[in-house]
Amino acid sequence: MKSGLRVLGLDDGPFQKFRDTTTVIVGVIMRLDSYVEGISVRDIKVDGMDCTETVMSMIKGRFKDDIDFIMSNGITFAGFNILDITEINEATGIPVIAITRKKPSMESIFSALSLHFKDGEERIKIIKKTSVDEINYGDKTLYINRAGISLNDAVALIKKTTYTGNIPEPVRMAHLIATAIKNKESHGRV
Amino acid sequence: MKSGLRVLGLDDGPFQKFRDTTTVIVGVIMRLDSYVEGISVRDIKVDGMDCTETVMSMIKGRFKDDIDFIMSNGITFAGFNILDITEINEATGIPVIAITRKKPSMESIFSALSLHFKDGEERIKIIKKTSVDEINYGDKTLYINRAGISLNDAVALIKKTTYTGNIPEPVRMAHLIATAIKNKESHGRV
Repeated sequence: MKSGLRVLGLDDGPFQKFRDTTTVIVGVIMRLDSYVEGISVRDIKVDGMDCTETVMSMIKGRFKDDIDFIMSNGITFAGFNILDITEINEATGIPVIAITRKKPSMESIFSALSLHFKDGEERIKIIKKTSVDEINYGDKTLYINRAGISLNDAVALIKKTTYTGNIPEPVRMAHLIATAIKNKESHGRV
Repeated sequence: MKSGLRVLGLDDGPFQKFRDTTTVIVGVIMRLDSYVEGISVRDIKVDGMDCTETVMSMIKGRFKDDIDFIMSNGITFAGFNILDITEINEATGIPVIAITRKKPSMESIFSALSLHFKDGEERIKIIKKTSVDEINYGDKTLYINRAGISLNDAVALIKKTTYTGNIPEPVRMAHLIATAIKNKESHGRV
């Protein structure tokens, strides 16, 4: 991989349940050598369904044609606002990797969606488009969903972009910015 | 200088004249090797006088004792909200460097402050606590004000933290984040 390749790292900000109706989603355009070329900030609805189109608007915006890979912090944003990584990959050709440190409990997610959302089945269908792979390297374990990229290439990209801890730098930067916007100061852990 | 040293980079966001009463000021805590450790986001008043106390609150906040140097994009934020770099240096002991790419026109700043601000003389007094030095290195020219640091050490720190263009990385990152918060997407040039 050339260091000229660019990753769009995505994470959402925190929100207060029963009070906030929106939170931010932050995109960081970063080269593989960790140089940040640009930042996007958008609002998304808590438990809404606008996450996918919002990320599409980032990709089609000022940084069009600059993004070679997308890495996100999981596939649920702002509560249960599901990022359709397959749709994004099919629409743009850009490979997408969604990463979490903790193993997602699919049963509890599906149960919450079925119980509390009118369109719960639709959201479950989006989640089920991809499956979770556990990856291990060194003493690190991550859980990923992916679209348009092989497991091997996904692991190579994660290794290549991780400098400290086990979260790739574009996602870590998006996390710091999103939490600082909502809480005034960033939190350490993704 | 050890790469363990940390710089707080500061820049403000854009604002619409006659419409916005506040804008953001962003602080980025960065190691000399460009690794970002934390981010602070605060609101300051357009043409207000709360810039200095807001930066003090960042320094005294979560990143207390982590900051070895402060670098800001100029000494005027959000219009004519003046950063008192001497006061900050005296209160904290941290050296402060304010950097601009264009030579500031002191006459027009003083004239605007005298004409349009009741407390214009007070603001002019703050600005006059330090003077502007022109620095040249390679083919680059910058204008700096400084407090608690020699001209030589200021130039060394600027060189050490500049990777692309002629603005030190902590200030460039603060600029990208502040513009993205206000305009959805970052602008390239500081």
